[in-house]
Amino acid sequence: MASARPMVNHRGPEFRRLVLDVTARLKWFFRTENDVLTLTASGTGGLEAAVVNTLSPGDRVLAVSVGVFGDRFAAIARAYGADVVKLDFPWGKAADPDQIAARLAADPNIRTVLVTHNETSTGVTNDLTAISKIVKERDRLLLVDAVSSLGALPLPVDQLGCDVVVTGSQKSWMIPPGLAMISISRAGWEACARATMPRFYFDLASAKRSLEKGETPFTPAVSLFFALEESLRMMEEEGREAIAERHRRVGAQARDGVRDLGLALLADERVASNTVTAVKAPDGIETRELLRILREEHGVVLAGGQGRLADKIFRIGHLGWVTEADIDAALSALRVVLARMITATDNR
Amino acid sequence: MASARPMVNHRGPEFRRLVLDVTARLKWFFRTENDVLTLTASGTGGLEAAVVNTLSPGDRVLAVSVGVFGDRFAAIARAYGADVVKLDFPWGKAADPDQIAARLAADPNIRTVLVTHNETSTGVTNDLTAISKIVKERDRLLLVDAVSSLGALPLPVDQLGCDVVVTGSQKSWMIPPGLAMISISRAGWEACARATMPRFYFDLASAKRSLEKGETPFTPAVSLFFALEESLRMMEEEGREAIAERHRRVGAQARDGVRDLGLALLADERVASNTVTAVKAPDGIETRELLRILREEHGVVLAGGQGRLADKIFRIGHLGWVTEADIDAALSALRVVLARMITATDNR
Repeated sequence: MASARPMVNHRGPEFRRLVLDVTARLKWFFRTENDVLTLTASGTGGLEAAVVNTLSPGDRVLAVSVGVFGDRFAAIARAYGADVVKLDFPWGKAADPDQIAARLAADPNIRTVLVTHNETSTGVTNDLTAISKIVKERDRLLLVDAVSSLGALPLPVDQLGCDVVVTGSQKSWMIPPGLAMISISRAGWEACARATMPRFYFDLASAKRSLEKGETPFTPAVSLFFALEESLRMMEEEGREAIAERHRRVGAQARDGVRDLGLALLADERVASNTVTAVKAPDGIETRELLRILREEHGVVLAGGQGRLADKIFRIGHLGWVTEADIDAALSALRVVLARMITATDNR
Repeated sequence: MASARPMVNHRGPEFRRLVLDVTARLKWFFRTENDVLTLTASGTGGLEAAVVNTLSPGDRVLAVSVGVFGDRFAAIARAYGADVVKLDFPWGKAADPDQIAARLAADPNIRTVLVTHNETSTGVTNDLTAISKIVKERDRLLLVDAVSSLGALPLPVDQLGCDVVVTGSQKSWMIPPGLAMISISRAGWEACARATMPRFYFDLASAKRSLEKGETPFTPAVSLFFALEESLRMMEEEGREAIAERHRRVGAQARDGVRDLGLALLADERVASNTVTAVKAPDGIETRELLRILREEHGVVLAGGQGRLADKIFRIGHLGWVTEADIDAALSALRVVLARMITATDNR
């Protein structure tokens, strides 16, 4: 059929219904009355939107980092000219809320705090309840990278007072990558009105104006919106508490299983993520080779370490549609392959 | 299966093969030896990448506009602080290469030219051969919005010397929106090395470094990469000349058919686009109502006018997988609905 549309006309009634429905369902999972906007980009694009819409060049921000993604959030702010004060914690540890409080007390010029809720590179979940309390009591703006947490780990956006919260479609939402979903509070919009960092594609005010007409400013990734609607329906059927509970179960199961194999976890149990488990690579085992055998011979895809953790850890993902049986299968394969590799090493 | 991957691990061998294959096939359609990079964003994100990677705040640029998308390209450059000199032509007309030449001759400070190859809002294709000759003879950088042309209309990137060329997945490439593909020349990279506009998500140098490892800097829209590979295979089967020839045929057919209905075209025949036909709304006919009836009763989706052309025109798209039979069906439905609406108007 002749048409000027990509698949559905994204300026037509079909897409209008779709984007409004998806937005309402997302708000329920965000537990927020704030605006929720969906951008065609991966999670990093969403983090960029959080930064450029709320900050001006020269603004001092506290960037709390416990790994690769915390560093990335800081790097985005720096690329756009923010005066970034970095607060780093050892990889595998969580951010210490008291140290955040001390920094904010010491420097009233810090008006904005960037924090990663769940750090995928190290398998650590920060205590966002404690952090948000400190940041909001001191009336600073709180920008949260919740790319790999929201939907699977408890994150009541309004209750915690998070101003901007970013997540990505390929994580808890279980659809392919390509959409970033962002909530923004009233204080966030006030910051937005003052912020002078340049923005066009990621301009949230323009996204909000379009959404009021049931549209997006630019052509949206329509197929992913359809997938997201379906996925949100499935997630509602399971229930948001049940999803969080399932992630708690499989997270504990993965950590127990790893310890049973005699392996060490990177993260402290108290702060270990229920969406990804980082395992220290055992001595004498080539991580890359371990992952290759698991993938090619067992169909189990684990991830290596990122940045300075390359070859030092491997990671078991358990975010999204993952059950106890999946974790069992991954652990069994790991047991078989490790035994073989250790024997081979011993016989060398 | 437990995994830290979205669908395929985008840092693994499967995606590596995919992104390298897609890139090689795209180069063939771009007819270029330049780098081609694929970003997870819609076409406008690609245009933003073209601007922020090659320009610095304060740089004077000539933004040639013949419609909504030319205006958008200019607006992006302005948002990032470029000193934009706008060269506007009446909507429905093409850009006059002589006027571009005169502007460049008059102002040696203009180092970069922005131009839309095919203006979807008015159904006009600019004479990129003449324009690129003028721009490159005068040694200026040429940034081309080829979102709705490349792949369907002839655009030999290297032969014309286009420095940065942007297209989008939902256009000639016939897959859902969400990927922007960009070629960048040696002169483009030189500009990139000097350019100081802030960039992170759309940083092309970082995309190039990642592509050399068969990766993307951030999580890519994996499902769209798979779809693109399949679509490129189909397009290769038809052949790039055959695709252009088919678009010439259906373009002419659409225009002839519209004239046969006694309707007027917005664009001059000489510059009319072979991917979209803009039709002046006949007197006394409510465009919105016409499009609604066509959509709901005939399953024919035409587009309305954008910006100041809203309600003044409607548009028949014929980009991508469109055949003569599709155009016939659209024209027949249009004939039936128009006759009915005109009778109703006469009887009022």
